[in-house]
Amino acid sequence: MPRLRLALGQTNPVVGDLAGNSHQILEAARRASAQGAHILAVGEMALSGYPIEDLASRPSFLSSCRDAVIDLAKRLQDEGLGELVVIVGHPDGPLQPRLLGTSNAPSAIAQNCASVLQHGHVKARYAKHHLPNYSVFDEYRIFIPGDELLVLRIKGVDVALIVCEDLWRDGGPVERVLEADAGLLVVINASPFERDKDEVRLPLVTRRATETGTIVAYVNIVGGQDDLIFDGDSVVVDAAGVILARAPQFREHLLVVDLDVAAATDSPLPPHVARVALEGGRPSDDTLEPDIAILPDDREQLWNALVLGLRDYVQKNGFGSVILGLSGGIDSSVCAAIAVDAIGADRVWGVSMPSRYSSGHSRSDADDLAERLGLHYSVEPIADLVLPVESQLKLTGTAAENVQARIRGIILMGLSNLRGHLVLTTGNKSELAVGYSTIYGDSAGGFAPIKDVPKTLVWQLARWRNQFAASRGEVPPIPENSITKPPSAELRPDQTDQDSLPDYEVLDAILDAYITRKLGRDDVIALGFDGETVDFITRLVDRAEWKRRQGAIGPKISEMAFGRDRRLPITYRPSLDVLPGAQTTAGGARS
Amino acid sequence: MPRLRLALGQTNPVVGDLAGNSHQILEAARRASAQGAHILAVGEMALSGYPIEDLASRPSFLSSCRDAVIDLAKRLQDEGLGELVVIVGHPDGPLQPRLLGTSNAPSAIAQNCASVLQHGHVKARYAKHHLPNYSVFDEYRIFIPGDELLVLRIKGVDVALIVCEDLWRDGGPVERVLEADAGLLVVINASPFERDKDEVRLPLVTRRATETGTIVAYVNIVGGQDDLIFDGDSVVVDAAGVILARAPQFREHLLVVDLDVAAATDSPLPPHVARVALEGGRPSDDTLEPDIAILPDDREQLWNALVLGLRDYVQKNGFGSVILGLSGGIDSSVCAAIAVDAIGADRVWGVSMPSRYSSGHSRSDADDLAERLGLHYSVEPIADLVLPVESQLKLTGTAAENVQARIRGIILMGLSNLRGHLVLTTGNKSELAVGYSTIYGDSAGGFAPIKDVPKTLVWQLARWRNQFAASRGEVPPIPENSITKPPSAELRPDQTDQDSLPDYEVLDAILDAYITRKLGRDDVIALGFDGETVDFITRLVDRAEWKRRQGAIGPKISEMAFGRDRRLPITYRPSLDVLPGAQTTAGGARS
Repeated sequence: MPRLRLALGQTNPVVGDLAGNSHQILEAARRASAQGAHILAVGEMALSGYPIEDLASRPSFLSSCRDAVIDLAKRLQDEGLGELVVIVGHPDGPLQPRLLGTSNAPSAIAQNCASVLQHGHVKARYAKHHLPNYSVFDEYRIFIPGDELLVLRIKGVDVALIVCEDLWRDGGPVERVLEADAGLLVVINASPFERDKDEVRLPLVTRRATETGTIVAYVNIVGGQDDLIFDGDSVVVDAAGVILARAPQFREHLLVVDLDVAAATDSPLPPHVARVALEGGRPSDDTLEPDIAILPDDREQLWNALVLGLRDYVQKNGFGSVILGLSGGIDSSVCAAIAVDAIGADRVWGVSMPSRYSSGHSRSDADDLAERLGLHYSVEPIADLVLPVESQLKLTGTAAENVQARIRGIILMGLSNLRGHLVLTTGNKSELAVGYSTIYGDSAGGFAPIKDVPKTLVWQLARWRNQFAASRGEVPPIPENSITKPPSAELRPDQTDQDSLPDYEVLDAILDAYITRKLGRDDVIALGFDGETVDFITRLVDRAEWKRRQGAIGPKISEMAFGRDRRLPITYRPSLDVLPGAQTTAGGARS
Repeated sequence: MPRLRLALGQTNPVVGDLAGNSHQILEAARRASAQGAHILAVGEMALSGYPIEDLASRPSFLSSCRDAVIDLAKRLQDEGLGELVVIVGHPDGPLQPRLLGTSNAPSAIAQNCASVLQHGHVKARYAKHHLPNYSVFDEYRIFIPGDELLVLRIKGVDVALIVCEDLWRDGGPVERVLEADAGLLVVINASPFERDKDEVRLPLVTRRATETGTIVAYVNIVGGQDDLIFDGDSVVVDAAGVILARAPQFREHLLVVDLDVAAATDSPLPPHVARVALEGGRPSDDTLEPDIAILPDDREQLWNALVLGLRDYVQKNGFGSVILGLSGGIDSSVCAAIAVDAIGADRVWGVSMPSRYSSGHSRSDADDLAERLGLHYSVEPIADLVLPVESQLKLTGTAAENVQARIRGIILMGLSNLRGHLVLTTGNKSELAVGYSTIYGDSAGGFAPIKDVPKTLVWQLARWRNQFAASRGEVPPIPENSITKPPSAELRPDQTDQDSLPDYEVLDAILDAYITRKLGRDDVIALGFDGETVDFITRLVDRAEWKRRQGAIGPKISEMAFGRDRRLPITYRPSLDVLPGAQTTAGGARS
């Protein structure tokens, strides 16, 4: 069997930063070439970043991407890397607007493409067939589907090329790969991390490999992009379902592997399949031991995901540091530990903001945490700032409680505006889901590290992080008392969360049933929960939607700059649409 | 030619309020029947409200909608209205999840349907073919497209039935209507208002009528739903392109018209067209003069749209009143006038919140406005609340300026929490687009009446509203000085907007080119704008995205309760999914 040396480049692109992303790919190509690879594949949209959302409807952005592909091919050639076959993901356009299957979709002028570069030129291009349009994906909104299949003949073997969702679809392009007799299937992906995603993704890759009798090489991008985390976890599986190589999660990596691929046959091609012949590149004599990463357990994966999500949001938006309130409670403690793991204690500012209702342990637990983590720490009592507001407006009850939270928001935003910190807001998924937060108060901030972590899981992660530290002989970062004490907002005397909410085990189970599993009221009760509790919780969830969004609704009378009819990434460098090197600064200051 | 009496019911549904929406349809049926109509058609999704977004992926919600259709048919029969043919829009499901054209779309379990009710039963059902998936529409995400056409034979004529986008699509179902020889085409719609939409919509209806030689009856829902405003403007056009009847914009209406329709032929049906025979109903002897509404000019339409958008957001979310800051400037003055027009002066609270930098005219113009409008008015000076924060945190420059805006936000939210007002935030589109606002400060609030109105248009609307009042012998609501003085945030001495922004005429023109027309930097400059100005403005727009959203980004690790992977209306009554009569209260209070 002919032998191919394949490199998979797990790069971490920034949406819109075509120059920076090209540089990452070029660097991967240098290393792949130095290791004697014949082919380098990088992820879906590795050149533009992913998801680009409605940037795909801007002709100038698409032209810049097209230019960047051509430029990348030239630069590879100029650096003497022309022999290497480089497969790169990018949006292609602007194309003639095409009516899609079931609507006028007037904005679709782009395709989601994989281009094949060699000898300074674009030798072939494949456009993704299957455009996901559920959950976080909006591709059928912005892309025109492709309908041709591509096979590359190189060193006597046929290599088929598809993009992400094409692999997931039964009866999709993968079946035609089988008809075309390709020996290797390369799939480029931008597949976001989710809990237990590896329990779905790897079995799929394995099944496709064994079904088609083809080696499957799956390359994914890595990195945080707004609320998505791409985990990498690139993998190569042979036709028997054996993992030949696997990249680590959550970091950039070049995975290089030798593959013995079935020789190409000259059977006639099925319809709509193009075959492009490429030169073979120099042979490699050495033998190579590929990496086979082993995934850590669920909690370690989650922790790493949250750390990467925070780190990349900070870095890609150009912040130097973060600031957060430290209440001594579990949520802010876990957020602080994530922040320190992500960007280092010298870039994390913690502020204790005790009120007249704060317990002694709030302050001492916050002090303890700050010392364990070694972050910058200050104390700003709020009583003298809250009282004038309460008394001038004669506020009582909930209205007065909220002033405390909002004054804390003003303090953090004020220090952010003064020194450029990104403000972290520390709410967990359970309390956000039921609306237990003060809008413009504790919910103020640009990034919410545990926004999607239910309270019960926050505790588990805290325990895991402490054990992990202990197992390495380090000081456990989170004070034991923050983990074990009953949670409280401390906005009035002796308040605890369980005054008005069920136990978090019950709450999280109901939220899972109602939100994630989309069960109706009766079906949630049928799981064994108390009817009154279910009614109470589901009603809170339905009511809290506006508070979670915070941004005000307003009547639409034209193409809006924002909101429902314009979807844009938050983190992106619009460099080629606008200014060279321009950079998003998602700060809170009045410009 | 046989004569049919057709009623078009322009109802104002609330998303999720199946009982209330059914009641509206029943009431329209009573009136249609009393006027001798044979057919009543109400709008797309008139039973469920529109858009339902990801509620369409909840089986329990869909089951409730299905039950509500059956229940409506029975109630019509029980009330002696069984003879009337009622065409009603609703989501149908839960269906077997179907793989859509180009993705796995695992969440689509519903269709966007029009059901035909008579004699207590659902006699026929049509599922929308063309699912818009651009701009504000997400239908291809949540619905399965239909592929059958429906013709109703009644009183010797054939009536074809389609839904909204089906009419817009060249080569769509409309062409098959022609083949099926229907004499009347009924199109039910949920078509949102946009500036100049009537310049597109009416010509389309007219073109389809003349192309197909068929009378086209177009019925639209009316009402505000979050950021969308449905304007009604239901219309009937004959095969010669003549308007036979037209409903007024922006309010509920029953449009009844007699139609002389070409008699049905017995030509064979094209494939995939079902014909359902219905009984004819009693004949009408009287003759009837249909309404033919005339649209007012652009500014009056816009004003009415903004008034309706605010009124319905307040009513549908169960608020009793609104509160807003009155600065004496044009934006807050226009918002206050809209609010008074929408819900009456006795439900509008204005607060003047002067700082040490506020000019004399800020206070006097606000006083003048309050008196002209007759709203509730109070003054809350902020100096004593701002100074303690500034001095404790040692804030200067922009950081200190923002404290003023945020203390004002705390005041409005505090009074909202105390008394239940909805807070209005008064920013215009131009300043929101470039990020000229303080996050958690002047941008705090649940509804932004002029969020999509560029500054230059705000002035035009103010002038129009004053002229309109004068033409009716009423006091012009907006002080002349608020219209003519230079705009300023007044956060430092002698500040004006034009210290840091170009003239609003230039700014609005650049925003229109960059945002609405999606031009790139070079193309904007080619329109004749100064390069430095264009670079400055486009960079501000790109940077301001996060501030406009306000809600914090956070890493996603599962199905989220909120954000990118779950799209829900803000205004909705989840009554049948959860609790009878439950009602959203989009307030800001900690529950």
